[in-house]
Amino acid sequence: MERILHFERAEYATRLAAVKAEMSKRGLDILLISEPPNQNYLTGYDAYSFYTPQMAIVALDRHEPIMITRGMDATSSKITTYLSDDSIRGFPDSYVNSTERSAYEYVAKIVQELGGETAVIGVEMGGYYYSARAHADLVKALPQARFEDADLLVNWIRLVKSPAELVFMRQAGLIGDAVINRVTETAEPGVRECDLAAAAYHQEISGTPEFGGTYNSSVVHLCIGERALAPHSTWTDKPLSNNTVINFEVHGTRRRYQINVSRTVYLGKPSTDYVKLADIAIEALNAGLDSVRPGQACSEVFEAFHKVLSRNGIEKDQRIGYPLGIGYPPTVAERTASIRREEKTVLQPGMCFHMMTGLWLGDQSVTITQPFAVTETRYEPLTRTPRTLVVK
Amino acid sequence: MERILHFERAEYATRLAAVKAEMSKRGLDILLISEPPNQNYLTGYDAYSFYTPQMAIVALDRHEPIMITRGMDATSSKITTYLSDDSIRGFPDSYVNSTERSAYEYVAKIVQELGGETAVIGVEMGGYYYSARAHADLVKALPQARFEDADLLVNWIRLVKSPAELVFMRQAGLIGDAVINRVTETAEPGVRECDLAAAAYHQEISGTPEFGGTYNSSVVHLCIGERALAPHSTWTDKPLSNNTVINFEVHGTRRRYQINVSRTVYLGKPSTDYVKLADIAIEALNAGLDSVRPGQACSEVFEAFHKVLSRNGIEKDQRIGYPLGIGYPPTVAERTASIRREEKTVLQPGMCFHMMTGLWLGDQSVTITQPFAVTETRYEPLTRTPRTLVVK
Repeated sequence: MERILHFERAEYATRLAAVKAEMSKRGLDILLISEPPNQNYLTGYDAYSFYTPQMAIVALDRHEPIMITRGMDATSSKITTYLSDDSIRGFPDSYVNSTERSAYEYVAKIVQELGGETAVIGVEMGGYYYSARAHADLVKALPQARFEDADLLVNWIRLVKSPAELVFMRQAGLIGDAVINRVTETAEPGVRECDLAAAAYHQEISGTPEFGGTYNSSVVHLCIGERALAPHSTWTDKPLSNNTVINFEVHGTRRRYQINVSRTVYLGKPSTDYVKLADIAIEALNAGLDSVRPGQACSEVFEAFHKVLSRNGIEKDQRIGYPLGIGYPPTVAERTASIRREEKTVLQPGMCFHMMTGLWLGDQSVTITQPFAVTETRYEPLTRTPRTLVVK
Repeated sequence: MERILHFERAEYATRLAAVKAEMSKRGLDILLISEPPNQNYLTGYDAYSFYTPQMAIVALDRHEPIMITRGMDATSSKITTYLSDDSIRGFPDSYVNSTERSAYEYVAKIVQELGGETAVIGVEMGGYYYSARAHADLVKALPQARFEDADLLVNWIRLVKSPAELVFMRQAGLIGDAVINRVTETAEPGVRECDLAAAAYHQEISGTPEFGGTYNSSVVHLCIGERALAPHSTWTDKPLSNNTVINFEVHGTRRRYQINVSRTVYLGKPSTDYVKLADIAIEALNAGLDSVRPGQACSEVFEAFHKVLSRNGIEKDQRIGYPLGIGYPPTVAERTASIRREEKTVLQPGMCFHMMTGLWLGDQSVTITQPFAVTETRYEPLTRTPRTLVVK
């Protein structure tokens, strides 16, 4: 069976070494990785199978991770990872949604096989795919082991993208530009909201003529008219009317590397006040971006952005940025550094963020944003569409 | 702000009463509901916001649930739920991805406000959105409460759909038919896999001329050529070649009610053996469907299906069905009844399943399936596309 690997073996080796170094530092013998993006990062594994239990195990003294999935998904391990057969394991289907058996007992057996009965075991306590039950079952099955919270251990390492990863981030950005254009072109009075959303999805997945896209890790947001005030709304069947604000957030996703980007389209003639609000939003966004450089703290970028708002009598308490990278549902956000007040994380070359400077104020809202990578000196925009309010 | 409710208030009241009755039976004072489909079922809440903590609280002695989200998403509570203002709560953004604060402390405060310091509290231990950390934080913040595993309490109630829910399931089925047709028409040699996937997504979301679709709760699966052996693969950029098997699973989703359905398209001329395999798969599927009636156990449906396989020397250990209903990522499956050996759940009118009888055997695979509802006497297919192998 042909393997489909998107990175050199050496890149996976570097990633594994970084994780093991951090494990050593924290005194962990074994790391149980339940988060799909972390599994993908360390093994290449890629399939939409994480709604049943799956686990990558990194043991300090083992040359490569072990990937555990449902039995039928071991085929995906064979196709998408670099792992040898002995490192690919699948549990029987009788473990799926069973009230009698737990797939985490199966995981525990493999930990024992690795000599881990009394090990110090790191688990991703705050992960999306590590339920309270998963933890309880593991603790019960490995009563002599010591469990430590190693949530975000891999995420923090992922925060800085390698040159090979940045290639995919840029391709994702090109797809993102194509999607912005498609939505902007499709939006006009009379078009059903669902048909506008359909056009966005079509473009996200079709990608560009040079390379295809794939599914995003959340949803297209189309926040229209009154619903524009709800940041995480989707769409209805209603036709677009004239004099309507359309705030949309779309994506470009390439080999699971994802960028998010938002724009606002105004159908009709916006009020002077609204245009002024959009101008402030853009000025603040640009001020934030212009302050980006290695060595700068996230909080300083927030302050540069917020200075423009304050000068115009606007307050925004929400974070204005989150990291971008490998995405699986429910979100691409890595849960590490946020661009916000009090965030001390210092920017480094290779970090990628979505500067999500949407403003939702009273009955007005505007969402013009920018995904970017931190370079050796400043920032590189990952999409090239001008940061403007689109009026049509 | 206009409310968008998809069911009568009386329907929500019936659902809440059923949940409270089960809570009473189990001695629970308070139920903390972290699963998005369960939140939607009981309050109407609908937004793609569940990647940050959110919780619906049902207290036995309170007339309606409390819905807790991130502050900015309280707008979605106001638009999409029937709840009064006092039942809509939002936590400050400083709780999001914070290493210092936990949103579950905020949840615990509201439990205290309800007089729940020493209550018996049900939590969804095995849910997708109840992490090991969430549980640990809650237990710490409510040291005198007693926590009980109430996972699937709401899911089992959701298993039987009301007449009003079945209306949406049927609409979802009509969208599913449109998607099958679109994929079948689009598939031909030379078309990139990503463009075929894009067409499927476009149709899923555009829906039909009468009503729109929305995002599905997983992904379109396009398992093509050699990758057809991996059940949960997606797609590549490669153009389709001739003499290729395309196994696809697509969806129809209407107001979050989702059906899944699969078909196999063969581009070129299949071998006699392959056509025979497809015939067996269809005969087995039909035998399973024909055995469906209220009072039948899930295991009996499995046996009716498997008898056809056995007669042809084929074994399948995996489950062949899972429930359909309200879907949010990562999956629509309700984690309750499976159609498989040893499953004692008895079919009742209103239950909906995807009979997912895909066969992956050695180097051959075929996926022809059927979503259905259990009626008063037999079954109602939720899609109308003939159950055949498509050769083109």
